[in-house]
Amino acid sequence: MSLLKAAIIGGGHIADQNHIPALKALSDRVKIISICSRVKEKARALADKHQVPFAFDNAAEMYAGEGKPDMVVICTANNLHYPFAMQALENDCHVFCEKPPAITAAEASEMAELARQKGKIIAYNLQLRQTPEFSFIKKCREEGALGKIYHIKANYLRRRGIPGWGNFTNKSIQGGGALMDLGVHILDLALEMLDYQMPDRIVANTYDFIGKAGGKGLMGEWNAESFEVEDACFAHLSFPDNSSISLSASFALNMKAEKDVNLEVFGTKGGAVYKPLSLFTEIGGELADVQFPHLKEEDIQLKNTTAFLNACEGKPSNIATGEQGAILQAVVDRIYESAG
Amino acid sequence: MSLLKAAIIGGGHIADQNHIPALKALSDRVKIISICSRVKEKARALADKHQVPFAFDNAAEMYAGEGKPDMVVICTANNLHYPFAMQALENDCHVFCEKPPAITAAEASEMAELARQKGKIIAYNLQLRQTPEFSFIKKCREEGALGKIYHIKANYLRRRGIPGWGNFTNKSIQGGGALMDLGVHILDLALEMLDYQMPDRIVANTYDFIGKAGGKGLMGEWNAESFEVEDACFAHLSFPDNSSISLSASFALNMKAEKDVNLEVFGTKGGAVYKPLSLFTEIGGELADVQFPHLKEEDIQLKNTTAFLNACEGKPSNIATGEQGAILQAVVDRIYESAG
Amino acid sequence: MSLLKAAIIGGGHIADQNHIPALKALSDRVKIISICSRVKEKARALADKHQVPFAFDNAAEMYAGEGKPDMVVICTANNLHYPFAMQALENDCHVFCEKPPAITAAEASEMAELARQKGKIIAYNLQLRQTPEFSFIKKCREEGALGKIYHIKANYLRRRGIPGWGNFTNKSIQGGGALMDLGVHILDLALEMLDYQMPDRIVANTYDFIGKAGGKGLMGEWNAESFEVEDACFAHLSFPDNSSISLSASFALNMKAEKDVNLEVFGTKGGAVYKPLSLFTEIGGELADVQFPHLKEEDIQLKNTTAFLNACEGKPSNIATGEQGAILQAVVDRIYESAG
Amino acid sequence: MSLLKAAIIGGGHIADQNHIPALKALSDRVKIISICSRVKEKARALADKHQVPFAFDNAAEMYAGEGKPDMVVICTANNLHYPFAMQALENDCHVFCEKPPAITAAEASEMAELARQKGKIIAYNLQLRQTPEFSFIKKCREEGALGKIYHIKANYLRRRGIPGWGNFTNKSIQGGGALMDLGVHILDLALEMLDYQMPDRIVANTYDFIGKAGGKGLMGEWNAESFEVEDACFAHLSFPDNSSISLSASFALNMKAEKDVNLEVFGTKGGAVYKPLSLFTEIGGELADVQFPHLKEEDIQLKNTTAFLNACEGKPSNIATGEQGAILQAVVDRIYESAG
Amino acid sequence: MSLLKAAIIGGGHIADQNHIPALKALSDRVKIISICSRVKEKARALADKHQVPFAFDNAAEMYAGEGKPDMVVICTANNLHYPFAMQALENDCHVFCEKPPAITAAEASEMAELARQKGKIIAYNLQLRQTPEFSFIKKCREEGALGKIYHIKANYLRRRGIPGWGNFTNKSIQGGGALMDLGVHILDLALEMLDYQMPDRIVANTYDFIGKAGGKGLMGEWNAESFEVEDACFAHLSFPDNSSISLSASFALNMKAEKDVNLEVFGTKGGAVYKPLSLFTEIGGELADVQFPHLKEEDIQLKNTTAFLNACEGKPSNIATGEQGAILQAVVDRIYESAG
Amino acid sequence: MSLLKAAIIGGGHIADQNHIPALKALSDRVKIISICSRVKEKARALADKHQVPFAFDNAAEMYAGEGKPDMVVICTANNLHYPFAMQALENDCHVFCEKPPAITAAEASEMAELARQKGKIIAYNLQLRQTPEFSFIKKCREEGALGKIYHIKANYLRRRGIPGWGNFTNKSIQGGGALMDLGVHILDLALEMLDYQMPDRIVANTYDFIGKAGGKGLMGEWNAESFEVEDACFAHLSFPDNSSISLSASFALNMKAEKDVNLEVFGTKGGAVYKPLSLFTEIGGELADVQFPHLKEEDIQLKNTTAFLNACEGKPSNIATGEQGAILQAVVDRIYESAG
Repeated sequence: MSLLKAAIIGGGHIADQNHIPALKALSDRVKIISICSRVKEKARALADKHQVPFAFDNAAEMYAGEGKPDMVVICTANNLHYPFAMQALENDCHVFCEKPPAITAAEASEMAELARQKGKIIAYNLQLRQTPEFSFIKKCREEGALGKIYHIKANYLRRRGIPGWGNFTNKSIQGGGALMDLGVHILDLALEMLDYQMPDRIVANTYDFIGKAGGKGLMGEWNAESFEVEDACFAHLSFPDNSSISLSASFALNMKAEKDVNLEVFGTKGGAVYKPLSLFTEIGGELADVQFPHLKEEDIQLKNTTAFLNACEGKPSNIATGEQGAILQAVVDRIYESAG
Repeated sequence: MSLLKAAIIGGGHIADQNHIPALKALSDRVKIISICSRVKEKARALADKHQVPFAFDNAAEMYAGEGKPDMVVICTANNLHYPFAMQALENDCHVFCEKPPAITAAEASEMAELARQKGKIIAYNLQLRQTPEFSFIKKCREEGALGKIYHIKANYLRRRGIPGWGNFTNKSIQGGGALMDLGVHILDLALEMLDYQMPDRIVANTYDFIGKAGGKGLMGEWNAESFEVEDACFAHLSFPDNSSISLSASFALNMKAEKDVNLEVFGTKGGAVYKPLSLFTEIGGELADVQFPHLKEEDIQLKNTTAFLNACEGKPSNIATGEQGAILQAVVDRIYESAG
Repeated sequence: MSLLKAAIIGGGHIADQNHIPALKALSDRVKIISICSRVKEKARALADKHQVPFAFDNAAEMYAGEGKPDMVVICTANNLHYPFAMQALENDCHVFCEKPPAITAAEASEMAELARQKGKIIAYNLQLRQTPEFSFIKKCREEGALGKIYHIKANYLRRRGIPGWGNFTNKSIQGGGALMDLGVHILDLALEMLDYQMPDRIVANTYDFIGKAGGKGLMGEWNAESFEVEDACFAHLSFPDNSSISLSASFALNMKAEKDVNLEVFGTKGGAVYKPLSLFTEIGGELADVQFPHLKEEDIQLKNTTAFLNACEGKPSNIATGEQGAILQAVVDRIYESAG
Repeated sequence: MSLLKAAIIGGGHIADQNHIPALKALSDRVKIISICSRVKEKARALADKHQVPFAFDNAAEMYAGEGKPDMVVICTANNLHYPFAMQALENDCHVFCEKPPAITAAEASEMAELARQKGKIIAYNLQLRQTPEFSFIKKCREEGALGKIYHIKANYLRRRGIPGWGNFTNKSIQGGGALMDLGVHILDLALEMLDYQMPDRIVANTYDFIGKAGGKGLMGEWNAESFEVEDACFAHLSFPDNSSISLSASFALNMKAEKDVNLEVFGTKGGAVYKPLSLFTEIGGELADVQFPHLKEEDIQLKNTTAFLNACEGKPSNIATGEQGAILQAVVDRIYESAG
Repeated sequence: MSLLKAAIIGGGHIADQNHIPALKALSDRVKIISICSRVKEKARALADKHQVPFAFDNAAEMYAGEGKPDMVVICTANNLHYPFAMQALENDCHVFCEKPPAITAAEASEMAELARQKGKIIAYNLQLRQTPEFSFIKKCREEGALGKIYHIKANYLRRRGIPGWGNFTNKSIQGGGALMDLGVHILDLALEMLDYQMPDRIVANTYDFIGKAGGKGLMGEWNAESFEVEDACFAHLSFPDNSSISLSASFALNMKAEKDVNLEVFGTKGGAVYKPLSLFTEIGGELADVQFPHLKEEDIQLKNTTAFLNACEGKPSNIATGEQGAILQAVVDRIYESAG
Repeated sequence: MSLLKAAIIGGGHIADQNHIPALKALSDRVKIISICSRVKEKARALADKHQVPFAFDNAAEMYAGEGKPDMVVICTANNLHYPFAMQALENDCHVFCEKPPAITAAEASEMAELARQKGKIIAYNLQLRQTPEFSFIKKCREEGALGKIYHIKANYLRRRGIPGWGNFTNKSIQGGGALMDLGVHILDLALEMLDYQMPDRIVANTYDFIGKAGGKGLMGEWNAESFEVEDACFAHLSFPDNSSISLSASFALNMKAEKDVNLEVFGTKGGAVYKPLSLFTEIGGELADVQFPHLKEEDIQLKNTTAFLNACEGKPSNIATGEQGAILQAVVDRIYESAG
């Protein structure tokens, strides 16, 4: 089988540390041929570092010549996901796009629709799906061990983790704050647990008190003036089948833990906690607490990239699909709308 | 000063174990003169046990004679709070009523209104207000140590605590389930933290899967057939000033702890946790976790009964007032309404 | 239904604190009518304390008159179990006998045989069977959750627990030491897990170094000179179906814990530990550790006495039967024989 | 002093990671001159990696020429220990052989006998002897701090540690399973504590339920079909002086810990636990628990290789000798024989 | 043997709860015949409660008549220890006096001297000497297990324990504050460890900042105005043999623990900590930490009263003698003197 | 701005691992131009390793030529601090000297005086001042959060940490033992907390029992014969304003911890502990324990070198000044004098 040709769009840390190593580890299935970045030198340097043949500062140029790929990985700022994805699909490439899918639900919808029309895969790098904990809970749910799941608490919280670098607090580039950057990861897991239904009722609140006050935290010093996004978001989602999600995301919150990324899943037969993986159920008529101390860590980026390749090849895959991305982005939109 | 004369209406466990001992401990301010219960013998036995002069099975009779009190304590089933309170107010008595205030918001409103008209006190026995933990957090808030409070997580959860006795699962008597019986306690604390505003947006879900399945738990065996109330309730409340509460209450939920009664309060300057009492804030520019290992336990029933007497005597009091009870009940009504 | 008439033989601590309270708690099924003790005054005093009509210092006399019971509870020194049990059976009484069944396998066999001939129940007070932990493990085994059980580690160990009182170190009265007094409890549980098979191979060692040195421990001071029994016993039992038990019992052993009474059960599908109750198995393909933090303690003497009464009434019962007692005693005999 | 010339026989992981680095660290006493492996290329590569002059795929050739050593280290599969050791001794070499000594007691006996005849050292790499914990317990025993040791519990247990690679489950190559591969380590320590007496009574059981079921564990996936050895072995050994050992070894067992390698030593004056090193004894008439939190880890392979060199040079050494290896192997033989 | 006749002087809590119960438990050796208290009614009531024949409000009267004792127990305020002890000795009674011995070194010296002259025992109720922990450390020292002891850290610290009752903060009645009330206990233990030498060099500091600020603590509310004593005292004592003590005592100190009563003893061979009892030494050449988890609690008042009776009867006794009391008081004097 | 030229005097571990890396990290402010060591080859090798232009074995030569620095870092043995510092000042260099300042108070005084005269900076590398913990406590004190500080416990203790290498036990080279090498660090912090007052009263004791016994510890084996210094030192310092310090320093002490470097600061409003950083105070009228779990570790050498450069440039600096060094050394002198 001939190798899939891949291009990387966006030459930052995520490309260098996550996507390129994963693709290189899968060299029996894929080969990176081009890297495209706003700054030609950066693209060139990254390409050299990873033995990639072509480097561009203009994607159109890339699609026009020898460097044309079969698939692209989009690792740019959030607001560029949409234009680069649309362009890639127009050029008949599969698209593996960083999260969040886009800036608005409309964009994410269009991306899914165009992929459908072109018969290409568009998928998103929501890699927490690949943790052994989430896989296990999903398997438990499928095997019926949890019964029907009716409520989920989903948290992606940092105590004082407003990044002191990058564009994380710039609304026009990022599209939002803690929800857009962190919340989508855990929201994706929660929605997946409920078969990616679209909620019919949402109430949400967002805040920016700590962000707007400026200060120094566990991820550096941030600027009060340029802080334009929410530092915390709390929402309740209710679904047509009466299941519900209570979602909390924060860059900064006066809480105990430095970081709390978790999922509590409540089902009719049992409950599950994501980290540390636990089940709370009944065994032999007694209330039982189950721990899994020997669960092995896994390389979740490698697993997610593999899942994307599987999807491209028409194999079964648990990748976040274009349709799911559109729903996820629609939920995000509605949360922001509710929060005003 | 002459002693206030008190009557107890309802001769169950709560009367015998909580209210009567508290009133007796305050014998320099109040004297129990009557006990009224549906069953005359029960009233008589309880009166004898506690050296109370009069026993009745008919409240009208009590108000008509020597046993007429200045104040009544209502310890009956929930659905009788309203008629007994209205009758007591009509008879010019102060009313100290068990929680929840009533079965509906309309009832609780009428109770507050009649008390206002009669110039009498009606107040509710929401005694978690008197815990040293809550008092402390309230004081911190008032002194500004927490800044503006904008989000509260309020939980009153039991893992498998559907009572195997009493009327707890009977909807017409109780008016509801986990929210009505347990949730109101923690909701009262949360609302008090936000100046008892009325929320302008609510989304809620209620469930009865575990209750309707029947079974045996940590509070006995319960009957699936007669289970008519919610075993769990999750709600998000948003307030006009954009603050919010995430509320969870359960009789049964597949969670780790046997019981989780807690309040997490998030403010702009600091956060507080109710149990074990903790503050999460910044001191000298560093993230600080504050514990209070020497906090003394207190007799919260005695403190709440004292607060009621203070209110009756026109002194400052932190008792849950009739107006607050009406708001609390209105919130409960709207939660049930939202949950459908 | 008319009440069963019970007599207590032996007027010591076990009678007063364990058996009499349990029988009194079952007053709808049984009534204690006689107490028989070597010393008339002691019998009388105990009878008065518990409102028992008749007191004897001679069992023959008891069987001859109004005090004649339907069942006896034997709480005497070990070496009197056999004669009192035989006499009771001859007098057509059911027999509930303290552990160990007897001093020798021959005695225990005769006791079982006579009971069979007389159509009466003889059973032993091996009450650890009634712990919720053992019941749970047994249930797991029956439901197949553990697969086939092939090896058991059974410990009843004390670090420095040679009793400083009573006859515990007197060989002719007790018949043995740590194995006879403590080991039989946990051996009973282990044998029950293997369907009370008779082992076909045994190697054992017994020791008396610490006992023979004399000293002071956690249960008082003991006398080196009069120490005639083993202070520790270690044995390996192999069964016809190739399952095995590793048994350890001690009055005194230089170990960490003050006391270690435990059972580790190894099965093909899962393992179980008795205290704290735990399962070690696979769930969803992962190694899982299961805890039961909400297991309720129970009154195991009351449960065992109830089981005896059930047996007497022909109902299903998990009491240690005469036949099991005979096997248990035979195993003890063979262990001592192997240890030389 | 001239350097001892060493040859490595067997070019696998143990040679590369354990023996060669230890010998190189002792370059003032020994020099590796030859490496011999079944596959010439492998021998060559390893020799190059470690700057060893000669590489062979045929030991006879090695003994015939310049590469002839004074001592050999045998790191081959178990079934080749015997032939290679005999050949080396015939060629007047000292032999440092991996554990177990051989496949049968007869082989190990012959090896010891030939070494005796040739005046050469044969010794085994049972390196747990060199742990500071074991050295300490041995010293305590020698100084009398434990009194006479009469019982030892010796465990080398893995919960789910059937190796998914190598020949570990192949009976003809390995000679056995958990006992042969793991149990010999801890059995060596236990026997050493009892002066390497030969037990006069043994009962043992072996199992292969989990192995024969196939599956995936903490050391990879194993094949049910090719699983020919025991996955667990339990034995009781009784010695002429009435001391005893309770031995447990497993590749797979449904237990809590991932791995349990331990020794509990019970003496008349004190007991000792191997890991974490502890003493349980009496000090000043009180039961005392002694911990050694500052014990330093040591490079046990280096210490064991040093011990071997000491033996070769006629210095005092605590290496496992040929005679001990013969006894160890005899005990293993008898355990398998007892288990049937 | 005829019973010793005892009188209690001082009718407060210490008499009622500590001394009288201890004496009554020793009724085979001593009989309380008189109780003397400033207020006749109090003396009478206490005498009745404990079946004591005589009650007085005047000690002279007691010595004059039938109520005359052989020994007195002095449980009065500190400033009355001296006059009552002198009077008792003059009346040929043994004296068992509460701590501190007196208010000044001069008084304590006179008390010891008069006792010597009269051939009577005077001793002090410094009962921490009787704790099993201190007995054990003393025994270790005597047996040489600690080598020579050269430095001791002695703490009796409370975080916020200024008593809100009694005379504890009144200088003329108490003679001092934290050192006089608490410090003497631990100082006695430290001095005893160094053979009750008299220090030749002392530097000390005392403070009253927290006391003088007034407030509420863990032992009630105290009055800033009437606070006349030190709330904390720190001293270094150096002895003629170059050993030394670092002493700290406080009623109030901004420290972590609620209470810290401890002794750290540093010797040439080992160190010991009082609570929890531990040894830090070398065993077999390794640094060893020794714990005593099975040490039994004891009734230290009963043991100290027994020790006093032993002294009266001329038997060996570890009671704090008159001479030791004089040294202790002299050290206290010199500490206050140094602190200015 | 032109770069400051630095020379390193002393070519050992401290130079190589601490000072040179810190200076190189500050290459925008300083440039190392010379290294001077007793052995020319050593100086040369170190210079080459760090790309330093000049290497000397004679400081006079260095000052005479091109290698002449603007500042020197003295990393020699203690007894050479004084001569090298005086020489450097005479040559108009700033001096950054390792601790302790010198061997005697007189030396340290002269050093400070000459620096004053020459208008140069002399400062000491007491880098614990730069720990975030100490900075935080100092800030708390300055902001008044601790009130007035009146007592400090200062410990720098090792259980068995007599260095088995170097000159640490040589009195003429080191000037002293545990106090001189370790104690000065923590004493500096304590004095800084009290505004570097000179104590007016000191009592101290020093010991050498463990050192003089010889042995092996956690920092190697040491020689009894050549052990000339104190292994432990305990002192009490009282200051003119009645504040006090209790100081303990040891190379070897029979204590629990391997190492205990700590400061307990007691103030009128709060207390502070250095490691782990904690405050003990009152918040809202309750006793509060404050922890700082997210405090970041810092490179304290880099911070201290920066502070020295700041001082050289006339900027605010928290470096230990020449005057402070003179006081510190005077306190050390007086402690040794008191201890005899």
